[in-house]
Amino acid sequence: MPQNQLDRLRVVLVATRNPLNIGAAARAMSNFGFLRLRVVQPFDLSFREARSAVGAPALLQNAEVFSTVAEAIADCSLVVGTTAVGTRQLEHAVHSLEDGGPTIRTHLESSRAALLFGSEKRGLSNDDLSYCHWLTRIPTRSEHDSMNLGQAVAVCLYELIRAQASPGAAPHTPTAQASGEELDRMEHSLLEALAASGYTKPGTEAATQEKARRLIRRLNLTSADAETLTGMLAKMRHRGK
Amino acid sequence: MPQNQLDRLRVVLVATRNPLNIGAAARAMSNFGFLRLRVVQPFDLSFREARSAVGAPALLQNAEVFSTVAEAIADCSLVVGTTAVGTRQLEHAVHSLEDGGPTIRTHLESSRAALLFGSEKRGLSNDDLSYCHWLTRIPTRSEHDSMNLGQAVAVCLYELIRAQASPGAAPHTPTAQASGEELDRMEHSLLEALAASGYTKPGTEAATQEKARRLIRRLNLTSADAETLTGMLAKMRHRGK
Repeated sequence: MPQNQLDRLRVVLVATRNPLNIGAAARAMSNFGFLRLRVVQPFDLSFREARSAVGAPALLQNAEVFSTVAEAIADCSLVVGTTAVGTRQLEHAVHSLEDGGPTIRTHLESSRAALLFGSEKRGLSNDDLSYCHWLTRIPTRSEHDSMNLGQAVAVCLYELIRAQASPGAAPHTPTAQASGEELDRMEHSLLEALAASGYTKPGTEAATQEKARRLIRRLNLTSADAETLTGMLAKMRHRGK
Repeated sequence: MPQNQLDRLRVVLVATRNPLNIGAAARAMSNFGFLRLRVVQPFDLSFREARSAVGAPALLQNAEVFSTVAEAIADCSLVVGTTAVGTRQLEHAVHSLEDGGPTIRTHLESSRAALLFGSEKRGLSNDDLSYCHWLTRIPTRSEHDSMNLGQAVAVCLYELIRAQASPGAAPHTPTAQASGEELDRMEHSLLEALAASGYTKPGTEAATQEKARRLIRRLNLTSADAETLTGMLAKMRHRGK
């Protein structure tokens, strides 16, 4: 996702109590490239603590503080609440994170969106929820549905960048697969080493060769690995000579 | 994902230092239904602290403690390391979490898998990595790629359960992948054959062992192929005896 689209998302933490959770949310944001944090009525002390923690990312220094949810989402044209969906009666549409994520992502292509996270104890209040267009739910199991705040933020933001990230994200050099010729050479080395060891019995040469050939092809070898193995086998074949 | 499949995953925390991180990893596991935690060489004190913390989930009480990675993954036929891919030269295939997750999920339909997380400061060591079949990377941005451990666990496990309902997964015939123990046996046979042949020079034993271990893990061996190769190598080792 381009930075200008990442910058259209506001992560809004409402009434967060634990400075460690504010710090963890900020860290996940920084990991995934979302840099605009807003906090609504944080415990003053805990917010100041989080902000001054060693290694606090710049986005925490730049966080905007609001006294109401209304002000914190005023410039956003999509507001999505996160919820564990407990016993509370919900009047909102609830989309799984998997389905809701792409909708938010599409929205960010042109417009601002807010993603709201409630306090550790109570989640989002009915009043907070009343500002939401819809809700999204992380698929936790019913026996233990309450997530840690920092982890919930990490999972939601991962979903938002997920589909964008895969092509070429990992700086992974393509490995050259072994050619037929390299595999033939390895097969030859293996058969020679087997013959020298007494593994191949007279009359079984053809069967051993077929077995070796199939096995080598199943290994899905890179060029470099085939060369290494061929060298090892040659050494075993010629040992003591 | 049915519970019996969830129970085939071992989340393995290697050399974790901070009890809060162990607790956070356990909480995310419980949220998503993965209940089998293994810890390798935790700081004793921090592990005891995490275990006795208020509200520590049952799975933390039941966590298994190991002194080596080899033991912790011995009964698993797929071992996946998590990494931020920094400057370290990687010899492993690296799959994005989005691509690697479905592979792990498919594996869990029939067999055990281990997902390894390194320590907060250093991640997985080269020795830890040598037990991995491949690595997976959470798509964090390069400017800030190091994730909090508890958040990394949450994101990886979310990816594993994310598409559980996705229809149309191809029917898949399970081939038994070689277990960690079977690969250890093969490694042992290979090293003995190499030593007997003069391939291993004095002073290079450790380097050869690491090279052999990585190479064997890259081969993606079935249980049957590992057995065949172990038998061949044993024969080469003992030739003429």
